[in-house]
Amino acid sequence: MSENCLFCGIVAGTIPSTQVGENDRAIAFMDIAPATPGHLLVIPRAHSTDLRETAPEDLAAITLLAQSLIGRVIERLDGATGANLLSCIGPDAWQTVFHTHLHVIPRYPNDPMVLPWQPHAGDMDEIKAVSAKLV
Amino acid sequence: MSENCLFCGIVAGTIPSTQVGENDRAIAFMDIAPATPGHLLVIPRAHSTDLRETAPEDLAAITLLAQSLIGRVIERLDGATGANLLSCIGPDAWQTVFHTHLHVIPRYPNDPMVLPWQPHAGDMDEIKAVSAKLV
Repeated sequence: MSENCLFCGIVAGTIPSTQVGENDRAIAFMDIAPATPGHLLVIPRAHSTDLRETAPEDLAAITLLAQSLIGRVIERLDGATGANLLSCIGPDAWQTVFHTHLHVIPRYPNDPMVLPWQPHAGDMDEIKAVSAKLV
Repeated sequence: MSENCLFCGIVAGTIPSTQVGENDRAIAFMDIAPATPGHLLVIPRAHSTDLRETAPEDLAAITLLAQSLIGRVIERLDGATGANLLSCIGPDAWQTVFHTHLHVIPRYPNDPMVLPWQPHAGDMDEIKAVSAKLV
């Protein structure tokens, strides 16, 4: 655990999150400023700054959990037909939280999603409603 | 191997590519329409349409190879300070070749990269010169 790390706080439960999946070494929770409905994050429980530092066991754990959630968002979210998996390594690559994370971004026909997206706080009721379909 | 699959042809060696890494279950090669200098792809040798179908051993192999190449692009390419890892699952998520692949896109301070990028054929001499730094 790294002090003052937002995502370490989510792992520890001291910072609230809407969790949608987990395994021994990873957890998944909803992004609160979603690029599209259902946007979620998968992180290793162990702190690493970015993917370069992530231990092989943690890398396997986050990618397996992300794979499972990619399947779930496409199967379960109304209208979702695809997804993007994204990770940002370094500030020049749009990384803003320095604990390794994989974005799973559901995609919808003709959605206007572009990267970088402009984050703005999502509607928490909508986010909770979407998350309920994923667990 | 899937017939008429471009990336299966690259794995088989019947379609040329500029390879920059490999392991037992995965290969990496330069994208010929790079979003930024050094843009490369990591694919499993075994055919799967997208990440949903990729076997766990192949998923581990491509992510470990991608991790290694993310480190290398940031260490070795002039000016690179970060990278994005991207995978596209389905046509509505910008997937255009239906053999699982991870994009490793080097990033540079203030580069204008946005996703989706507009692919246009890169300069093969430049691509080869960059690839030589990665092997």
